[in-house]
Amino acid sequence: MVFILKAGVEQREIDKFVKTWEDRGFNTILSVGTEHTAVCLIGNTAPIDLQHEVETNEIVDYGKRVTEQYKAVSRTVHADNTIIRIAGYTSEDGRTEDVIFGEGTFPVIAGPCSVESEEQIIEVARSIKKSGARLLRGGAFKPRTSPYAFQGLKEDGLELLFKARKITGLPIVSEVMNQTQLPLFEDVDIIQIGARNMQNFDLLKEVGKLKKPVLLKRGLANSIEELLMSAEYIMSEGNEQIILCERGIRTFETMTRNTLDLSAVVLLKQKSHLPVIVDPSHGTGIRSLVAPMSRAILAVGADGLMVEVHDNPAKALSDGGQSLDPLQFEELMGDLKKRAAMEDKKI
Amino acid sequence: MVFILKAGVEQREIDKFVKTWEDRGFNTILSVGTEHTAVCLIGNTAPIDLQHEVETNEIVDYGKRVTEQYKAVSRTVHADNTIIRIAGYTSEDGRTEDVIFGEGTFPVIAGPCSVESEEQIIEVARSIKKSGARLLRGGAFKPRTSPYAFQGLKEDGLELLFKARKITGLPIVSEVMNQTQLPLFEDVDIIQIGARNMQNFDLLKEVGKLKKPVLLKRGLANSIEELLMSAEYIMSEGNEQIILCERGIRTFETMTRNTLDLSAVVLLKQKSHLPVIVDPSHGTGIRSLVAPMSRAILAVGADGLMVEVHDNPAKALSDGGQSLDPLQFEELMGDLKKRAAMEDKKI
Amino acid sequence: MVFILKAGVEQREIDKFVKTWEDRGFNTILSVGTEHTAVCLIGNTAPIDLQHEVETNEIVDYGKRVTEQYKAVSRTVHADNTIIRIAGYTSEDGRTEDVIFGEGTFPVIAGPCSVESEEQIIEVARSIKKSGARLLRGGAFKPRTSPYAFQGLKEDGLELLFKARKITGLPIVSEVMNQTQLPLFEDVDIIQIGARNMQNFDLLKEVGKLKKPVLLKRGLANSIEELLMSAEYIMSEGNEQIILCERGIRTFETMTRNTLDLSAVVLLKQKSHLPVIVDPSHGTGIRSLVAPMSRAILAVGADGLMVEVHDNPAKALSDGGQSLDPLQFEELMGDLKKRAAMEDKKI
Amino acid sequence: MVFILKAGVEQREIDKFVKTWEDRGFNTILSVGTEHTAVCLIGNTAPIDLQHEVETNEIVDYGKRVTEQYKAVSRTVHADNTIIRIAGYTSEDGRTEDVIFGEGTFPVIAGPCSVESEEQIIEVARSIKKSGARLLRGGAFKPRTSPYAFQGLKEDGLELLFKARKITGLPIVSEVMNQTQLPLFEDVDIIQIGARNMQNFDLLKEVGKLKKPVLLKRGLANSIEELLMSAEYIMSEGNEQIILCERGIRTFETMTRNTLDLSAVVLLKQKSHLPVIVDPSHGTGIRSLVAPMSRAILAVGADGLMVEVHDNPAKALSDGGQSLDPLQFEELMGDLKKRAAMEDKKI
Repeated sequence: MVFILKAGVEQREIDKFVKTWEDRGFNTILSVGTEHTAVCLIGNTAPIDLQHEVETNEIVDYGKRVTEQYKAVSRTVHADNTIIRIAGYTSEDGRTEDVIFGEGTFPVIAGPCSVESEEQIIEVARSIKKSGARLLRGGAFKPRTSPYAFQGLKEDGLELLFKARKITGLPIVSEVMNQTQLPLFEDVDIIQIGARNMQNFDLLKEVGKLKKPVLLKRGLANSIEELLMSAEYIMSEGNEQIILCERGIRTFETMTRNTLDLSAVVLLKQKSHLPVIVDPSHGTGIRSLVAPMSRAILAVGADGLMVEVHDNPAKALSDGGQSLDPLQFEELMGDLKKRAAMEDKKI
Repeated sequence: MVFILKAGVEQREIDKFVKTWEDRGFNTILSVGTEHTAVCLIGNTAPIDLQHEVETNEIVDYGKRVTEQYKAVSRTVHADNTIIRIAGYTSEDGRTEDVIFGEGTFPVIAGPCSVESEEQIIEVARSIKKSGARLLRGGAFKPRTSPYAFQGLKEDGLELLFKARKITGLPIVSEVMNQTQLPLFEDVDIIQIGARNMQNFDLLKEVGKLKKPVLLKRGLANSIEELLMSAEYIMSEGNEQIILCERGIRTFETMTRNTLDLSAVVLLKQKSHLPVIVDPSHGTGIRSLVAPMSRAILAVGADGLMVEVHDNPAKALSDGGQSLDPLQFEELMGDLKKRAAMEDKKI
Repeated sequence: MVFILKAGVEQREIDKFVKTWEDRGFNTILSVGTEHTAVCLIGNTAPIDLQHEVETNEIVDYGKRVTEQYKAVSRTVHADNTIIRIAGYTSEDGRTEDVIFGEGTFPVIAGPCSVESEEQIIEVARSIKKSGARLLRGGAFKPRTSPYAFQGLKEDGLELLFKARKITGLPIVSEVMNQTQLPLFEDVDIIQIGARNMQNFDLLKEVGKLKKPVLLKRGLANSIEELLMSAEYIMSEGNEQIILCERGIRTFETMTRNTLDLSAVVLLKQKSHLPVIVDPSHGTGIRSLVAPMSRAILAVGADGLMVEVHDNPAKALSDGGQSLDPLQFEELMGDLKKRAAMEDKKI
Repeated sequence: MVFILKAGVEQREIDKFVKTWEDRGFNTILSVGTEHTAVCLIGNTAPIDLQHEVETNEIVDYGKRVTEQYKAVSRTVHADNTIIRIAGYTSEDGRTEDVIFGEGTFPVIAGPCSVESEEQIIEVARSIKKSGARLLRGGAFKPRTSPYAFQGLKEDGLELLFKARKITGLPIVSEVMNQTQLPLFEDVDIIQIGARNMQNFDLLKEVGKLKKPVLLKRGLANSIEELLMSAEYIMSEGNEQIILCERGIRTFETMTRNTLDLSAVVLLKQKSHLPVIVDPSHGTGIRSLVAPMSRAILAVGADGLMVEVHDNPAKALSDGGQSLDPLQFEELMGDLKKRAAMEDKKI
């Protein structure tokens, strides 16, 4: 059950209203939108007489039952789009610009699957910046199916990302593999929760306590509803800065690495107020599909894109087959900019 | 193994070349493109010395081994796009226009899931025509999971489609359920093979003997390669007019009816020369997803679109929940026309 | 809605009761069990007052609402197991024995994927008979993914099966691919509907008009409920002799050809009165899994087994990799006989 | 590449042999079987001349290339079954008995999904012990899709399990959710890695450093090969006591919670030397399927069973619908004991 409060209600009154419900044994979620504030009750609301509560609480405008299991992430509770702003850095060229998700924008995150060396990450960062990417991605801690595969440069990898950020001004996105690593990520701009960790609930709770954007990837076999429930884990701990990411699901089709589910983008945006981006590199696993799928991702209404770019895909230590080289990325960005203009979206 | 023949070779010489191979026990596929002719061998070509054959056959330009199981539908054998032209009909307003698939065009097929009445099909046909649809779809014979569900108007349904075509000039697309019905479909413009029949190999062979375009839908659990093999069944009987149709696959996700696999569009066009269209109505099963997915379908590079439109979706005898009403369709078409113009594609 | 009639009601009264309902616009299914007869209504039964009807119809014992979409195949309508008896043939050795499915029996169907030659089918038939198989399977018409693969010996294949039956006395099971072939199958003992045809509804209706057992295989991506609905198609035309067959579903796992779903056996038997058998050869695609899975199939409560046996699997024209050789089959049967004895089931 | 050493080689010589390879840049896995010791090389072994190495190293009996990505868990490297022995506890009645996996035994793990109270866990423990279960399972830390669902009694839950163990003598199995919890699990007999954590590689490495049996459950969308790779993570850190557990995979079928893949049991035992058990409670999600599937699990050759038992399933805080009550469990165990006797397996 959610109560939408009247405009202009004072904080003191809101606190009192919330307290009443907590005294009655409910947990509450407070959702502050640009136009109105909502109070959502967590617990068994079946016995509550909704109409009575609306009528007898002066600060309440109206109320609704929330049939979804997810509450804080639901559009029913919070109607406006959540907007996530990543503070910009001053680059070598002296310019600074914030990156915004969810406000009619389409920022592109690019970079290699793994950070491999200083030279590599800086070269890639420079080239994607030039092409128009707004954030740099790079794996420092790598979840690999085989214990004998390259596991990432770890702390050193993060250091190299910070260097690349210093030079290019691009905020950075990197994947955390477990909660004990979180202190190392204090200076990372967006913390990525990978597909395999989408239901690592303890990790979700920990990043929920941070004041930092989280990029939450859909698990390989997780439903749209489960993705929203995992976002709810984060938000129920207080962190509202969540970017959802569709990255392909596991199906019987073997020609692609995964089956990219673009319907999920539309549904996630209908059901939730969170921004939704898509990763066609993992979503398909095939380089030649990345550009056409990126065009579809923009057209379907996603709030951004995440693409793997490597300076020398043939020699990549991981996922080379799905990485674009800088030239291919430049070409893709040129195409997307024209299309985004038509969509009235800023890349 | 495929031999690409030199330009300008005489038919007599081609026939002789083909005969040589058939005498050696091979079946052959002759693929006549706009620029060159190719002869593909079916059988165990492993022992053949490719270089020797190219050198000793004067009419051969070059040769390649075809590693795919599908031959006639493969781009390796036939490099140019197959273009399918459906002859136009003169409508009430006196105009006639052919419909073309595969030549930088994006024709839209629209209409109800089932033909339900004369009034319904004519009203829908008029309205979709006005909005810019190029073909009318409508099920006369309906494959339904339950024997107690509406099974279609059958022959009468086809007659009503012919009436609607006479009025609007829109060529018609309708699904055949088994080969004994084929005589009834003589006057249908495009024969649809439904998802459940994608591996009804005897039916494929029968439509392979026709001189009529076939719309072949991907099965619910069929791989991209199996779809191409089914097209090969049709083409190996002589019918080269095949339009492939992605319409969603069955996965664990339950929020959508199926998972629409847009990567398949790109892969099908890479691997084959046949036009590829997409059906987002069955592909998602949800009305509100049809428009955004249609935008993605155009952007990803498909050669056309098939959409369910019903004059009164709430009362449809089948699939109402995924049908657009005429107004929604008009709005979608307006949007698609602008986008197609940007893609330099004719709707 | 189903009415269970009192014991001993006369046919004349049943007919009258049925007619009343048909006059009220319902279709009816008459289900005659060993202990009681049931009349199931097809149509919109929501407005019917169940209690009133039971009270005012003297011949009715009690009534129930049938919530499942399938009616005739449902245990709610027909509580007793359906028993299917295939009349035995006199073999060379002068003995005759009927084969029974569904009465605490576990008959084993064995034979090659395809009938390849007289020598092959007779040799296999003799050896499986010796090992204890009760029916001979063999494909005469073969649905193959590739048009260039061996398509079966067709009519000649059926003739060879008849020869093998004459010699061994084993009734035969063979797959029909489309309804125009049905006249050729008049003398086949059990007509198999393959996985790809599970939703070929016109074919289902045609075999529904026969008086002959049908072996209905689950489709690769068909749910348990859809399998029951397909059985309902057959039964709604009057043919009650249906054997359901689980044969593996398509999943993301690539190490096996399909994922054999043994839970389906239990659920099918809970929800329906029809016998259920399993095919571990197609269900796994791997020879070394056939014996252990067969043990599980017996233990889980299936009503029979279908196994591929080839006299020389390495040279089989189809599916050699999943076929047992006669010795392996003999060993498996020895093991199963001991286990069946413990289960009190007759093989 | 793996070298099987001659019988009776001295440790000193083995160490020297291993050192030679590590000096050449390889990692090694030492696998000590009952009959022979094997040394497996990790790294690029392609350039090594296998025959030359076998001939020139006196302590080597023979060598093989290991084509699988997994090495330490592979039967190619370690031919004998791994046997895992859990030391028994003295129960109230003064008896002690070890539990053994992998030696022709079929121990049954039973207990509630979640530990809910002292009364509950002790009552369940007593009753399952009486029925013949050999280990007690119970979740203290519960991974739940919703943050608002019961998350387990945590440390208190573990304490209650220890109490129940003290009374009944049953060793306990409980799930760890992340590596920071491991100190709490020091006294747990078998540490369970849940399906959602199968690819939590950091957690795998941490339990790999323990000297304690690990029960590794297959992920919902993980292939058989990926399960083996995850076991390899554990074993590559030194812990060889791993029990694999099939618990159902996610498919399109919605009638069951998951699709239990019994073929996986056979394949895992063919490819690996580790014991394999099955959890039909999560694998099906339906109480009435647990007993028939358990019979199949025994018959297919699994090394044990894990079943959810609750003293009052209707009131369970989690997974009540798939839990047996103590009476149903007793009945199942009675049946399994008879069947195990026939299989010559000790329950």
